[in-house]
Amino acid sequence: MIYADNAATTKLDADAFEAMKPYLVSAFGNPSQPYFFAKPAKKALKRARVTIAECIDAEPEEIYFTSGGTESDNTAIKSVLYREKNKVITSQIEHHAILNACRSLETLHIPVEYLSVTNKGIVDPKTLEAHLDDQIGLVSIMTANNEIGTIEPINALCQKAHAKGVLFHTDAVQAVGHIPIDVKALGIDMLSASAHKFNGMKGTGFLYIKNGVQLHPLIDGGAQEKHFRAGTENIAGIVAMATALKKNCDRMEEAEQKLKTLETIFCQRLNVLGIDYIRNGSDNHLPGNINISIKNAEGEMLLHRLDLKGICISTGSACDSVNTQLSHVIRAINVPKEYAEGTIRITFGWENTEEEAIAIADAIGNVINH
Amino acid sequence: MIYADNAATTKLDADAFEAMKPYLVSAFGNPSQPYFFAKPAKKALKRARVTIAECIDAEPEEIYFTSGGTESDNTAIKSVLYREKNKVITSQIEHHAILNACRSLETLHIPVEYLSVTNKGIVDPKTLEAHLDDQIGLVSIMTANNEIGTIEPINALCQKAHAKGVLFHTDAVQAVGHIPIDVKALGIDMLSASAHKFNGMKGTGFLYIKNGVQLHPLIDGGAQEKHFRAGTENIAGIVAMATALKKNCDRMEEAEQKLKTLETIFCQRLNVLGIDYIRNGSDNHLPGNINISIKNAEGEMLLHRLDLKGICISTGSACDSVNTQLSHVIRAINVPKEYAEGTIRITFGWENTEEEAIAIADAIGNVINH
Repeated sequence: MIYADNAATTKLDADAFEAMKPYLVSAFGNPSQPYFFAKPAKKALKRARVTIAECIDAEPEEIYFTSGGTESDNTAIKSVLYREKNKVITSQIEHHAILNACRSLETLHIPVEYLSVTNKGIVDPKTLEAHLDDQIGLVSIMTANNEIGTIEPINALCQKAHAKGVLFHTDAVQAVGHIPIDVKALGIDMLSASAHKFNGMKGTGFLYIKNGVQLHPLIDGGAQEKHFRAGTENIAGIVAMATALKKNCDRMEEAEQKLKTLETIFCQRLNVLGIDYIRNGSDNHLPGNINISIKNAEGEMLLHRLDLKGICISTGSACDSVNTQLSHVIRAINVPKEYAEGTIRITFGWENTEEEAIAIADAIGNVINH
Repeated sequence: MIYADNAATTKLDADAFEAMKPYLVSAFGNPSQPYFFAKPAKKALKRARVTIAECIDAEPEEIYFTSGGTESDNTAIKSVLYREKNKVITSQIEHHAILNACRSLETLHIPVEYLSVTNKGIVDPKTLEAHLDDQIGLVSIMTANNEIGTIEPINALCQKAHAKGVLFHTDAVQAVGHIPIDVKALGIDMLSASAHKFNGMKGTGFLYIKNGVQLHPLIDGGAQEKHFRAGTENIAGIVAMATALKKNCDRMEEAEQKLKTLETIFCQRLNVLGIDYIRNGSDNHLPGNINISIKNAEGEMLLHRLDLKGICISTGSACDSVNTQLSHVIRAINVPKEYAEGTIRITFGWENTEEEAIAIADAIGNVINH
């Protein structure tokens, strides 16, 4: 089996599993309880918060644990329900966690604008600037696109929002653990992340909220997370997330070099095989992300043929895989008609090898050229 | 160490841990993906849904996985945001997951009524009936109280709501896995549950929604959970939850007998020691729950003294343990002033022994009588 769908989910890191295990099997105390037995859980939470904060240059108290990127996104977007200025600006190529949270706002008569992008999938800061009016409460633009890997000019976009006094959120689910993230340098107010995208456990994530930014919770209840996110904490998942993120951040440069090499090897092989394809997204993209549209091909058929050969790749977002229509991202970047339906996404991860990159290209060539 | 705070959280069942492990370490595929490698995760989700449904007499498609009881409660309560009739009726003794979700509705000018309870903590169906008017969109009453263990007359309450065409939700976080729950016999529309309360993993839960009941999601995004609860599923946690719930349900009668015996032994010992206390809650209560108010004692001091002896008990809800004031439940049931501050909660679980019950009573006697 060759797994090259690391944008959909990643394998739980072995050290992360070892780190979380004690909080599953023995140190099971509820961290909200004051007695001695609950202290290890409480300390683990504190340590995880410090570790994660360090990885993105935040302060520990700016990290709020959630059940994943989707919850983090919904928390950021739906916080406008409780604001006077509640209009939202986002982009057409956001993840459905953002887009569908915005649709919910619209059913409550809260206006949302969806910015168009360039054919590389870039949100132009000037486009954002032109849409900023007095009613905007929040701008949310993703750090990197989950399908085509394009990295957005977050700092420039954030500056435009802040120039008008508007809060800026970024869905960094696909970026955290894969490219350097420095929340202070970016200047952003909120950032969403998901553990299972960087070798953590499914069902865990966090929301960064800059000190001083006042948001209304999405999930109310107990006093956890400074009264901002109620519910007994998923300690084991949180510990795994911190361990995995630190490991990914520590090897980030090495991983980037390795993944860029895999990209080059893969694309060169496609060229040798004479495949007529377009590579989608910006040159400045997530390491290991290869989104290609093959002329007169059929992405879904390709995926299934590769599956029969034991190769896991994707046509688009995993979260939208029940929907076999052309993805909203591929439509937004205007991939030419004769190529668009032949879109597939290969996302290499830390464990992939050069042999696997060649094998995937050969398998594609085998399907296309026969 | 004696752990007698099973209402706060329970130890992850050893079989549940073994069952979840493969989905952490090897079968890590994203269940939304169509390829072969993701099939074990998809099948595990399906099996877990069937198992859980069987445990509460629901249909599998009526089970929606969430990150826990608090999220389930928030989903049920905040769904009224998208309804025309949006007024909510709940009780004064609900968990903060319900109460604070209601407070959020109130900040959005949605009216909420908080029903009073009897001094046993019972919500009288006649009280509910008297408050049902044409604007009510939802009634939410807990199945069993987390502090005093009182089991509410859910079927009778639900009938009153349904007689006026109003949806009925119950927070059964403390009850599921501990007393028989039959959603069809109860007639309810929604039910919240949390895995870590019945030996599952923290950070997992579910919401039962009766077929035909239309709710708006709390967390929008991908197509997971039939578009009702977005976000990549916490497969490992879900598998552990199903395993633990089935095991708890299979031994429920045996557990109840065992826990009632522990209650009797504990209370008899307190009597022998001459402790002047009131036992709070109804005779019809959660097995193993002992909530007592000791005359002229101080609950927090007692908890700390017992902690020094290696005994874990609670003063009230774990989620509210940072708040050292008298709990809202103890206030609502009007515990006499000279007893109220001496309130502690002992919650026995499957693993507790008769020796431990006696040891806890003796430790309390030791603190009180010296």
